[in-house]
Amino acid sequence: MSELFAAVEIIAAKRDKQELTDPQIDWIIKAYTDGLVADEQMSALLMAILLNGMNAREISRWTNAMINSGERMSWSQLERPTVDKHSTGGVGDKITLPLAPLVAACGAAVPQLSGRGLGHTGGTLDKLESISGWRASLSNDEMLKVLQDCGAVICAAGAGLAPADKKLYALRDVTATVQAIPLIASSIMSKKIAEGTSALVLDVKTGGGAFMSDPLKARELAQTMVGLGKDAGVKTLALVTAMDIPLGLTAGNALEVRESLEVLAGGGPADVVELTLIFAQEMLEIVGIKGKDPAKALKDGSAMDVWRKMISAQGGNPDAVLPVARENVTISAESSGTILSMDAMAVGVAAWRLGAGRSRQGESVQSGAGIEIHKKPGDKIVAGQPLYTLHTDTPERFARAQEVLQGSVEIGDAEVKRLPLVIERIS
Amino acid sequence: MSELFAAVEIIAAKRDKQELTDPQIDWIIKAYTDGLVADEQMSALLMAILLNGMNAREISRWTNAMINSGERMSWSQLERPTVDKHSTGGVGDKITLPLAPLVAACGAAVPQLSGRGLGHTGGTLDKLESISGWRASLSNDEMLKVLQDCGAVICAAGAGLAPADKKLYALRDVTATVQAIPLIASSIMSKKIAEGTSALVLDVKTGGGAFMSDPLKARELAQTMVGLGKDAGVKTLALVTAMDIPLGLTAGNALEVRESLEVLAGGGPADVVELTLIFAQEMLEIVGIKGKDPAKALKDGSAMDVWRKMISAQGGNPDAVLPVARENVTISAESSGTILSMDAMAVGVAAWRLGAGRSRQGESVQSGAGIEIHKKPGDKIVAGQPLYTLHTDTPERFARAQEVLQGSVEIGDAEVKRLPLVIERIS
Repeated sequence: MSELFAAVEIIAAKRDKQELTDPQIDWIIKAYTDGLVADEQMSALLMAILLNGMNAREISRWTNAMINSGERMSWSQLERPTVDKHSTGGVGDKITLPLAPLVAACGAAVPQLSGRGLGHTGGTLDKLESISGWRASLSNDEMLKVLQDCGAVICAAGAGLAPADKKLYALRDVTATVQAIPLIASSIMSKKIAEGTSALVLDVKTGGGAFMSDPLKARELAQTMVGLGKDAGVKTLALVTAMDIPLGLTAGNALEVRESLEVLAGGGPADVVELTLIFAQEMLEIVGIKGKDPAKALKDGSAMDVWRKMISAQGGNPDAVLPVARENVTISAESSGTILSMDAMAVGVAAWRLGAGRSRQGESVQSGAGIEIHKKPGDKIVAGQPLYTLHTDTPERFARAQEVLQGSVEIGDAEVKRLPLVIERIS
Repeated sequence: MSELFAAVEIIAAKRDKQELTDPQIDWIIKAYTDGLVADEQMSALLMAILLNGMNAREISRWTNAMINSGERMSWSQLERPTVDKHSTGGVGDKITLPLAPLVAACGAAVPQLSGRGLGHTGGTLDKLESISGWRASLSNDEMLKVLQDCGAVICAAGAGLAPADKKLYALRDVTATVQAIPLIASSIMSKKIAEGTSALVLDVKTGGGAFMSDPLKARELAQTMVGLGKDAGVKTLALVTAMDIPLGLTAGNALEVRESLEVLAGGGPADVVELTLIFAQEMLEIVGIKGKDPAKALKDGSAMDVWRKMISAQGGNPDAVLPVARENVTISAESSGTILSMDAMAVGVAAWRLGAGRSRQGESVQSGAGIEIHKKPGDKIVAGQPLYTLHTDTPERFARAQEVLQGSVEIGDAEVKRLPLVIERIS
């Protein structure tokens, strides 16, 4: 009963625009994790936080309370410095796949805990699971062994890591309280800090295909997360990057793995290569590794070697043929000219509707489903030439994907206006 | 699954300060009542409503949706016009007890559905239950029969009346979302409209002992409820009345019944008598009953006759000796002079702590517990004279009641400043 009253008082304080005290924050996160505070109480508090905000002290304390709800990992046994990267999510954002082995090939250790996709953006684990045999779930000991042997590991966060965040994330998803900067920042940073990395480079996406479409909000989120990293002694840097158009030429699980392999083989779309190299350079610099050229590590096959070792170490067959969807449909351009814009959100939602993503936690995804993009903004196209190829195992999904792609490109002869790939660097 | 997504969209709309549409409101109230929308979703929506508000159309639709969640009662068989009164709750507010039989004695029918106390204000049903044998729960047929035989009935709302409100009220209580004007107004008015009364006089309390301490907020609540009544075809009037000091000289269940009997016997404290007569006149006027003098009905015993009949009809013994608490303690004045003020909230909380109220729905209350007030603002007092007598069956409660009463009166020789008994009349 005393717990119930304390919860009501804490909700009322935030409802009335008061700052929550450190003991209030510590108590409510612990009590919620332990099941003493009910979901309906926490969701009322989350809505009050979304609408009335939290200051830097409150966000920092909230993040710490989430970290303290579970275990904190440590990589002190490793000889290499640890550095991780996190993206807030975008359409066609497969950067983690070539990046983790690339940075490992240059001498850092990359303990990459990743998530699954929800909504219109894909998840790194869903992508890797299109490789036959690959396992996302590793014990802490297995994770350490893969890191020691390969220099990089990409896996799911265990149940012991920030359990408060797991409960809160599921609750936010059904109560329209995902989109609050204090809650996004604390969710991401609690997991990354608990993960035990010594340094972190954040990719905060902005533009029409990002969760945070407003660049000013993206900057605020980036600044908030960099502050939280520093408070916790993790060297943290954020790049605000463009998500007005899809990254690369694919959106979908196996399709993105294929494109990542092209990058690791020294090829691949220019924007994916460029962003991968920018992040690799930042990650190496932040842990003080000098004199390594990531572009060389892509060309000379050393990044690919780490990839193959890492995939094998997690049960995957790096030579396995990637799944291909049973059905495909090609959409052609309706007019001729230069492609002036491409709606990243439309492409993301179409890939999702084709089966590449999930609507609810726990749903399965189709490995082969997704979209290939044949021409991007800046390219010339002639009416009738292929623009997109849609892939799915379940052809009844084509209609709703085609519907959302209607009007997703603008073709004309004006100047192509798009965001610079890197908009801002926040350190 | 579709339900889940619609709920999230509705929460997001109110979060983003949009107006909810009529179909959205109808759907979410029905889906919540039916258990398709989860408590954690509704509480997030309630917090968004509390912080972002609803306009008159939304509140009216929300109220109607709550009415439509259950049955709507009708008193068309009665020859007398029906009129009810509702108070938002105050300390020592026992007005309903003498008022309902008084108005019945003057020719109207009073179908008074009442509630139980929660927090520092008492509940009419808790008070009446201190009368041996009296039953709060009546079937609709029983309710009609008491109304026909006595002209007044005071009982609990049945489970079929506005079930959406019952669920919402319990949820608001634990999620700090009680204090939102749209939610208070729709909760009260949905029950009163579903109850089937043709006319309604509202007592909206303001001042330190009221839930709505700010008079401007009390006015807004009053105006909102009067608008809802008119929308539903119920003649509705509201008086904003003073709750800066307790009403009468008692706070507690049996203590307040005793004081109500004094009023029905033609005596009683001046403020209780005055407010009872003001409401009786308004209730008679709103249903067009002319030429009746409620003051006379108190003096000549006709109101008392209705009371005795009504109590008997609900199983109570009107001659039963009222319960007296096992222990009492008297608090004396610490200085001499005129009592300048008395903190109604402190008196209400003290009575609650003595056992007159409950902290959680479903707790039992002590019939005999509460406070007698020996002197009120405007009275002269000499140091050492009794100021309050505290009553409880559980003497370990005295200390916390005494604690909250510390400094609850101001004694001096300045002018007594208090709110007028009726602050505003809104029709």
